[in-house]
Amino acid sequence: MQISFSQQELESIIEPLSTEGKISIAVTSVAALDKAQKGDLAFLSNLKYKAQVPTSKASIILIAADYEGHPNANQAYFRVNNPSHALAKLCLAIEKRLWPKPLAGIHPSAIIDSSAEVNPEASIGPLCTISAGAKIKKDVVLGAGVHIGIDVIIDEGSILMPQSRVLDYCRIGKRVKLHSGVVIGSDGFGYYFNGAAHLKIPQVGNVIIEDDVEIGSNTTIDRARFSQTRIGLGTKIDNLVQIGHNVEIGKHCIIVAQSGIAGSTILEDYVVIGGQVGIADHVRIGQGTKVGSQSGINSDLKAGSNVRGAPAYSYMFAQRLEVFRKRLPELFERVSTLEETIRLLQNEDCKSNY
Amino acid sequence: MQISFSQQELESIIEPLSTEGKISIAVTSVAALDKAQKGDLAFLSNLKYKAQVPTSKASIILIAADYEGHPNANQAYFRVNNPSHALAKLCLAIEKRLWPKPLAGIHPSAIIDSSAEVNPEASIGPLCTISAGAKIKKDVVLGAGVHIGIDVIIDEGSILMPQSRVLDYCRIGKRVKLHSGVVIGSDGFGYYFNGAAHLKIPQVGNVIIEDDVEIGSNTTIDRARFSQTRIGLGTKIDNLVQIGHNVEIGKHCIIVAQSGIAGSTILEDYVVIGGQVGIADHVRIGQGTKVGSQSGINSDLKAGSNVRGAPAYSYMFAQRLEVFRKRLPELFERVSTLEETIRLLQNEDCKSNY
Amino acid sequence: MQISFSQQELESIIEPLSTEGKISIAVTSVAALDKAQKGDLAFLSNLKYKAQVPTSKASIILIAADYEGHPNANQAYFRVNNPSHALAKLCLAIEKRLWPKPLAGIHPSAIIDSSAEVNPEASIGPLCTISAGAKIKKDVVLGAGVHIGIDVIIDEGSILMPQSRVLDYCRIGKRVKLHSGVVIGSDGFGYYFNGAAHLKIPQVGNVIIEDDVEIGSNTTIDRARFSQTRIGLGTKIDNLVQIGHNVEIGKHCIIVAQSGIAGSTILEDYVVIGGQVGIADHVRIGQGTKVGSQSGINSDLKAGSNVRGAPAYSYMFAQRLEVFRKRLPELFERVSTLEETIRLLQNEDCKSNY
Repeated sequence: MQISFSQQELESIIEPLSTEGKISIAVTSVAALDKAQKGDLAFLSNLKYKAQVPTSKASIILIAADYEGHPNANQAYFRVNNPSHALAKLCLAIEKRLWPKPLAGIHPSAIIDSSAEVNPEASIGPLCTISAGAKIKKDVVLGAGVHIGIDVIIDEGSILMPQSRVLDYCRIGKRVKLHSGVVIGSDGFGYYFNGAAHLKIPQVGNVIIEDDVEIGSNTTIDRARFSQTRIGLGTKIDNLVQIGHNVEIGKHCIIVAQSGIAGSTILEDYVVIGGQVGIADHVRIGQGTKVGSQSGINSDLKAGSNVRGAPAYSYMFAQRLEVFRKRLPELFERVSTLEETIRLLQNEDCKSNY
Repeated sequence: MQISFSQQELESIIEPLSTEGKISIAVTSVAALDKAQKGDLAFLSNLKYKAQVPTSKASIILIAADYEGHPNANQAYFRVNNPSHALAKLCLAIEKRLWPKPLAGIHPSAIIDSSAEVNPEASIGPLCTISAGAKIKKDVVLGAGVHIGIDVIIDEGSILMPQSRVLDYCRIGKRVKLHSGVVIGSDGFGYYFNGAAHLKIPQVGNVIIEDDVEIGSNTTIDRARFSQTRIGLGTKIDNLVQIGHNVEIGKHCIIVAQSGIAGSTILEDYVVIGGQVGIADHVRIGQGTKVGSQSGINSDLKAGSNVRGAPAYSYMFAQRLEVFRKRLPELFERVSTLEETIRLLQNEDCKSNY
Repeated sequence: MQISFSQQELESIIEPLSTEGKISIAVTSVAALDKAQKGDLAFLSNLKYKAQVPTSKASIILIAADYEGHPNANQAYFRVNNPSHALAKLCLAIEKRLWPKPLAGIHPSAIIDSSAEVNPEASIGPLCTISAGAKIKKDVVLGAGVHIGIDVIIDEGSILMPQSRVLDYCRIGKRVKLHSGVVIGSDGFGYYFNGAAHLKIPQVGNVIIEDDVEIGSNTTIDRARFSQTRIGLGTKIDNLVQIGHNVEIGKHCIIVAQSGIAGSTILEDYVVIGGQVGIADHVRIGQGTKVGSQSGINSDLKAGSNVRGAPAYSYMFAQRLEVFRKRLPELFERVSTLEETIRLLQNEDCKSNY
């Protein structure tokens, strides 16, 4: 990583309340307090790690205004209101240095159908393939080897990372980010079994990705059987997720890696799905629902649900069930003891009857 | 989606028993009854949705012959024997319009080794790479950026979607469809641990995909350690599935998204595997077996099994176990009550003994 | 597979203790004893299959020195100390024939930034894209369509299979093998929820892959939020695995297909993770730990742990729990019987009190 910031540059980026100490070398990396070396910037955002501050080798430490303590030699403290926010400012500055806006224009090796329209302020990387009728709008960035299908629209400001693919007739909104290896618009998985073989049901719909969506690497989103598979505004999807045909995902949802959502299921807005979750087809997940990692959902969930497990129950009940499951060996023993006690009681009864 | 059908065209495609009503605009999309707008065609295949027919805004509705009711103004009913079949006919017609057969020939940007053979009736998209000794047969379609390895054979009529890959020495049958991002023939995962490090076991077999198979986007199928990994005739595999080395999958199986099948396992014919299932290595799954979503299989299953759960049990038993598991809190309480009752009984006994 | 070995060639490769019998045809494949045909070589490594030897149609059979029995007509036995080791020698020889070292040099269709450095002894396949500042060292092989990002370093002897991608600023060690579709360095999944929308947290770290690592097809490894995501020396990762940002994986670990490891989690050395496992974020897995397939881990594990299940418990306890879970129907019945017995006892007591 070729980044390098002088103390002065960092002060102008982070705008600390005050600084204490002075370093002469450049900061070239960010690191955790206990791992930081000379040239690193570290930060204390969680007081749990407070004890690591005095011994940290970081050249600069972001620290709360009321922290008591002073920098070592060749070290500086930046006192700030919120070390996490201060760090975020710095990371944004680093991001801009690492990835300056690419130049507009079309790499000569890109293959662009004569009927496609590429805005002159878009940036098309090497070896992209853009099919007939596609429209690439202003400020779009296609990395190397991106494939754009027939009549696809990529709206303003979207970024498609290297070797992502948007297949025929799909629509990508504004400021969307698609990561490498994404497949938008593969066929839905639909067959009709005629008693001997599975016959393909044509999948003639498309996929609509609304504005401000981000989709992780190697995630797959299938086109609708007809009409649309839809990913709502601001939704963020992690890597290796599978979204089936005709699924409709609402606004501002979160779907963590390796989860799968089967055909025609609906997620309302602000749903949060943990990693490796499976959701059956034709199910409706109510607004604001949270689903724990590795859960299995096979029926509707009301708005505001908080569930986990496979099959999933409410968070509290699932946790209670697990506590009891862990105590199964004990329970079997208690039942055996009861049986034994009763046998004895019965015997005594018998005896006492005589 | 640039489709557009006049009522007359739709009548010639769908061949309804009778039509009632007349529309002057073109139909440009298919939609569900309750979501359909002007210009949409809708259908009543499930009587559950019967009440949606009179208020549907669809321009044309496919409807059973005996449906009682009449179209609104600017609406037409097509009465048919089976609305689902009628819809399938239409979808097939749409498919043909959206994806007309691509022209035969080789895009000038494709990189084809001089020893590869490409049938003149095949269609090779831009930026494909076809390696030494490969054979691409008649009517094969390679989308943009497909990679074909050394000595690979792609048999007649197969369609490889953009950026799918068939690695060295693998064989693809007739009328196979490989979706974007598929990897056929990556190394099997085999190592020998020498006490300090994992040494690679060479993977020198290949993968055979038989006729009429379809494989979903970003699915991976590993080459055999030696001999073959085999996917049988007519089997359909969904997205993001992992098939290990030397696996043998029979004919007409279904494997839903994100399932994984470990090395050397055998699926007999007509097996159906739900989503996110894991099957251990060296296991045999009998013909016609059904495995529920998210199951874990680690031993052989007899033909005709119907299992679910991790570990998997018969469908009925798994369901029963789940019913009992849900009642664990109740059971603990009942056992506590029993213990209390017995304590009292013992005390009474004690008293009565005095 | 275009391999072909005469008996004489095989003798010089395998160096048997002795041979018995003579074949005149070439060996063109390796197969299991019961499936082998004329022209195949088979082997008896597991005595379980001993009975298959006399009826095997293999042309050559690798067999232990003390095996009693003699080859059929047109068949030869190679007696060896260890048939598995002998087979490994042969597979290595096959591997060398199937994949001779590719010629050094750059395919004319590759797109290489003028500021990138490609060692003259590296082999760059067709349609690779190599970005500014990247360094490709000696003996590296890039298959067709590999993408290398800005300032990436690929160290000596690494092999990147077709259409694998190493994104900006990541580092790949020596003798690493990346399979097709791998994504190294996609953004970590980090957002800050402001009450209305999820705001992206910049991901400005990178990924370091140490020497002798192998990473399976379509696996995704995210770049760190800052600093590094790291895969340690000699670790082997299977297909479709997800590694989150800032994860640190130790040396010589094994991670089987479709597992996912969430952000900032640490695996110490020699950890073995089965297939479809999920590991939560910020967890530490101690050295040499073994995690069974489909497990869910959400807290630290001590060195040498052996766990399974979701949530995971020690192997023994998890197995015990499962035995008891299977007996839940019985337990419910026993409790019902106890309740009935006590009711009767109480009635008797009542009676006896009168």
